[in-house]
Parts: sequence; C-alpha cells; structure tokens
Amino acid sequence: MDRTPTVEDVALAAGVSRQTVSNVLNAPDVVKPATRERVARAIAELGYRPHAAARRLRTRRSSTIGIHLDPYAGGISGVVLDRFVHALTERSSERGMRMLVYAARSPEEELARLADLTEGGEVDAVVITGTFHGDPRTGWLAERGIPFVSFGRPWGADDVSAPAHLWVDVDGAAGTRAATRHAIASSGPRVGFLGWPVGSGTGDDRERGWREAGAGGPRLVTEESVAGARDAAGRAIVDGELDALVCASDSLAIGAHVAAVAAGRGDLPIIGFDNTPAAEALGLSSVEQLPEEVAGGALELLMGSSGTSIRPRAATPGEAHVLVEPRLVLR
Amino acid sequence: MDRTPTVEDVALAAGVSRQTVSNVLNAPDVVKPATRERVARAIAELGYRPHAAARRLRTRRSSTIGIHLDPYAGGISGVVLDRFVHALTERSSERGMRMLVYAARSPEEELARLADLTEGGEVDAVVITGTFHGDPRTGWLAERGIPFVSFGRPWGADDVSAPAHLWVDVDGAAGTRAATRHAIASSGPRVGFLGWPVGSGTGDDRERGWREAGAGGPRLVTEESVAGARDAAGRAIVDGELDALVCASDSLAIGAHVAAVAAGRGDLPIIGFDNTPAAEALGLSSVEQLPEEVAGGALELLMGSSGTSIRPRAATPGEAHVLVEPRLVLR
Repeated sequence: MDRTPTVEDVALAAGVSRQTVSNVLNAPDVVKPATRERVARAIAELGYRPHAAARRLRTRRSSTIGIHLDPYAGGISGVVLDRFVHALTERSSERGMRMLVYAARSPEEELARLADLTEGGEVDAVVITGTFHGDPRTGWLAERGIPFVSFGRPWGADDVSAPAHLWVDVDGAAGTRAATRHAIASSGPRVGFLGWPVGSGTGDDRERGWREAGAGGPRLVTEESVAGARDAAGRAIVDGELDALVCASDSLAIGAHVAAVAAGRGDLPIIGFDNTPAAEALGLSSVEQLPEEVAGGALELLMGSSGTSIRPRAATPGEAHVLVEPRLVLR
Repeated sequence: MDRTPTVEDVALAAGVSRQTVSNVLNAPDVVKPATRERVARAIAELGYRPHAAARRLRTRRSSTIGIHLDPYAGGISGVVLDRFVHALTERSSERGMRMLVYAARSPEEELARLADLTEGGEVDAVVITGTFHGDPRTGWLAERGIPFVSFGRPWGADDVSAPAHLWVDVDGAAGTRAATRHAIASSGPRVGFLGWPVGSGTGDDRERGWREAGAGGPRLVTEESVAGARDAAGRAIVDGELDALVCASDSLAIGAHVAAVAAGRGDLPIIGFDNTPAAEALGLSSVEQLPEEVAGGALELLMGSSGTSIRPRAATPGEAHVLVEPRLVLR
C-alpha cells in the first residue's frame, strides 16, 4: 500500500465494520475474542498505526509536559533557562514524553493558557519556572490536582521538610560558599560580595553562602546590569579594599571585571554565577548551575526514577524536592 | 457542577445516548437536526469542552508545529536559535497554534522522530533549522507532502526564483556589507574580515558582503572559537594592518577584541555578528539577526499572512521565501 493505512483499510481486510475496529482499539472487552484477533492481525499486516490523537483519547494521557517559555529578555544569564529547556526536552524524550512550550506575557495569561492545556488534556503535567513570593500558579495547579514541579523552591514556606509542592532548585548558598572559601584560600581574607538589593529569594540565598564562609570584604549592591556592577564595584576596587570578589551573577562579574581592568587591576580574582558563555569568553571563574541535573531532578519528581508516565499524585514530603549542588568552574 | 462535565453528563441532560453525543461531535450529518440542537444546547449549558484529543481526532489537525531543539552546545551564538524558538512560541500562540519541541542527536534520529510525530498526526507542520548541503530532512519531508519551512536557505540550489522548499533566512551578506561600509567611512579603508574556513554556506555569505563593500584589509581565517580568533587576529593587529575588523560571529569579535586589548589597541573598531549579550556586555558593535522577524516570516510562509492553520500546500515560488535584512547595532 502506497499511502498510510486507515481504519477503513483495517476494517476491509478483517471483514468487519469500522465501528468494530474502533471498538477493538478503544473498548476491546466488548468485542468477541475471535473478531478481536482477526482485527489485530489486519492491523499488524497493514502496519496500521492508530492516530496519536486516538491513542491519547483512549488512554486520556497526552504523554506531554508543558513549560512556559519566558519572552526573550536578553541579558547574560537567560541562557540558563534555555539550557534547562534543552535538557528537559532531551531527557523527557528518552522517557517517551514530549515537551510542549507555550507563551504568556503575564501570570494571568499563563493561568489562562494552563487552563486550556490541562482542561483539554493536552498536557499531563507542567513545569513552572521563575517562582516568586505569592506566585498564583502554584496554588492554582495544586487546587486542581494537576501534577507539576517548579524550578525554584516555594520561597517563604518550610521548603524542605514540608514543601507546598514538588520542586527542584540549585543550592545557591552552597555555590557562593564554595566560591568564597576558594577565594579566601587563594587570594586573601578580604573577599567582597557584589549582589542584588535584599528581598529576592535567589539573591538572598547567594549572599548567605558568602556570609557563611566568613569573608572579610564589603557587601556591594546593584541592580542586575553590567553598567551598574561596574559603578558599584569601581570604588572598592580603586580603594584597594578587595582581595577577590564573588558575584551573584555573571553580568555583575563582567561589570566588576571591566571596572578592575579600567583601574589597572585586571588580575583581581572575580567569580561569577551561572557559568555563561560570556564569562567563559572573558576567562572569568563562575558557579555552574548544572541545568541538565536540574532537568533530571524535575523528571524524577514527576515520573519516578525510571517511570515513563507522570505519577498521579504528589510524592511523600521526604522525596518532594531535589536540591542540586552547583559546581565551581575555575579559570 | 463541581467537576469538569463529561460526555455522559451531556447525554443525560439531552436525553440521548453517549453515541449520539459522539455523533454530534464527530459526524453531525448523521444526526437529526432537532436532536443535534438539543445536544448542542446541553453542551452549551453544561460548559462541556470536548477533550482536545477528540477535537484533533475529528479535525485530523493537531494545531501544533514541531521544532527540533539542538543539544545545548554552549558558545556565544547559541542564543540566536533560542531567541528564534521563543519568538516562534509567542507568535504561533497568537495564531492559536502550539509548539512541540523534540530532541534528536543525529539526522537519522531526527528523521525517526519526524516519522513518529507526523504519522501520529501530532504536528501539522515542521520548522527545521541548521540546514546544510545534502540535508536528508528536506527531501524526506517534501516526499511525504509534510508542510515545512527551514530557517536557513536550501544552499546550492537556485534559492530565490525556484526554491526547493519554503525557507526563511537572514541576509548575512547584507549585514557584513553594511558593517564594512560603516567601518570604511568611520575608520579608514583597511577593514579586515575574520571568518571561518571556506565551505560553510553561512560563512561564505558573510564573507561575500565584506568583499562586495570593497574593503582594503586582509582576510583572516579561524575556526569558531574565542581563543582561535585571538590568535588569528593578533598578528594583523600588532603589525598595524587594520583600521577596523568585521567578524563572522561575536565569538570571533570577542577573541579579536581580547587580542586588541593585549596589544594596547583596545580602541580598534571591531564589529561582530549576532548581537549576543556577550558582545553587548563588552560594548562591541554587532549585526543583529532579528530572530523575531525570522519567526514571523516562517509562520507567514506556513500559514499565510493572517491564517490560523497550516496551509495544505507549498506557496508559489514567488512567495516561497522570506529574506530578513539584519540590522547593524553600533556601540
């Protein structure tokens, strides 16, 4: 047969009605065993493949995971989320799942999209990213019993022993702690920290790691921008207050590096966060988030360690999160 | 009703069998008009939403476009393809379409994935990226009559007046021509070009734009890497052969910039290609590919200028491609 065989071809070959073929596929119990076998033989001989939509209608499973793609905002660190999506796509494919990406420009629009996708049975589970204090998505998903996992912990609650939902995250404090300890050991005690204003979960977590390592340098603050970082780090560098500098992001590290070069201190050790291509190109050390491990952790929470479908209910609290320890990449 | 209404609820409310409801949804012609109306009223009153899989089975349309996500390879310029996927997701959403991303580690694996997705009716069309001489995907898709568009032209054939398939691309030669003309006018005639070895469609195209602008500087060659570019550009910079340098990528521009700084010529005008966050962070000028316009062009070819579904057949040759003119971003 030159064209793709249809259900009609199967019916003709098996000498039954189209409805009977449909029953064999959808409600085999109502079909006599001998008929069932004849239809099955015709299906095999013709190489008929039931339409995916039919299979999904039958199983009520889409074998698809939805994830929101943020609008492209530029910036040095956006690449981390893209790497996470790449890794999710690869790892979910290995488990027979597909990834559906969707766009939304506001939390409200995202809820509307989630309603479409979940009510229509188009996704079995959802991965959300960029969680924040008071995030409306987590409650909405939990109320409806829709399996989901967040990249980012449920900030403010008891994340670890009684988490509000499944989550996977990178241990930012462990990353900056390792970076700070390395800097103290190799450059001296006056290791400063250049971070964002207090109040962001991610930023406060990264600052904590620096503080816990017992560094003796100043705490410098700026918004997330290369130019802001250059200005914020400039004076401390010129005044010779620093043996090294740990930063909350690669953008900040690059800004500080530009300030150091301008001050004739291009050799000042500066460690960024995210290990982006830009930091690599400039030869700056950085804390690597390991997005591939984060993706693996998200799928493990949703599907178990080797499952090929979404688990119907949340895991027990003890196994409800995965915290990935980042890696310090030295250059 | 607290839970989502089902087809059984509709049947009960309309006083008909489940099969009749199914017929109204799937084969309305076989149902008497009065019954059809009663069922339609029950559907509206209950707010019943047919399962997306059922709707798709009925229409034989998935309203979904597939796109391969390359494995994350790092590098400065990978962000361009990610921006393209972001933009496709947003623009297809505006037209009621969804994007399904899939992974594949080789052309063979990609063909197998495409077979799954298209035979199963999971995608209505495909966007392929990274086309190359002798690409097996384009012939495979064309033979099967599967609508597709490539980001990247069908190199080697008569691309414009008789293209082998729908394509959208960025006019690389126009980008480097504009960059070279600007450099000649503002810095002097000795504008060099730092590019890849001859033989890549994209690289040869970008080199052509520099040549056509009549610059008097040397042609320098290296593989795509920051370190390679630093070495390749270093001697020409030290020997004072350059008034400015146009590069085939931002990675090359960053390598050349590092060499220029090391040679005490940090002010040498260097123009990259791709306008990545890394080039922006370093204050380098660059040619911007406008991935959002590329995504708009791809959807226009597949769906027409305002359509909400995939067009069943290829456009006429005259409207079978979109060539986006890139923009020179000066810093």
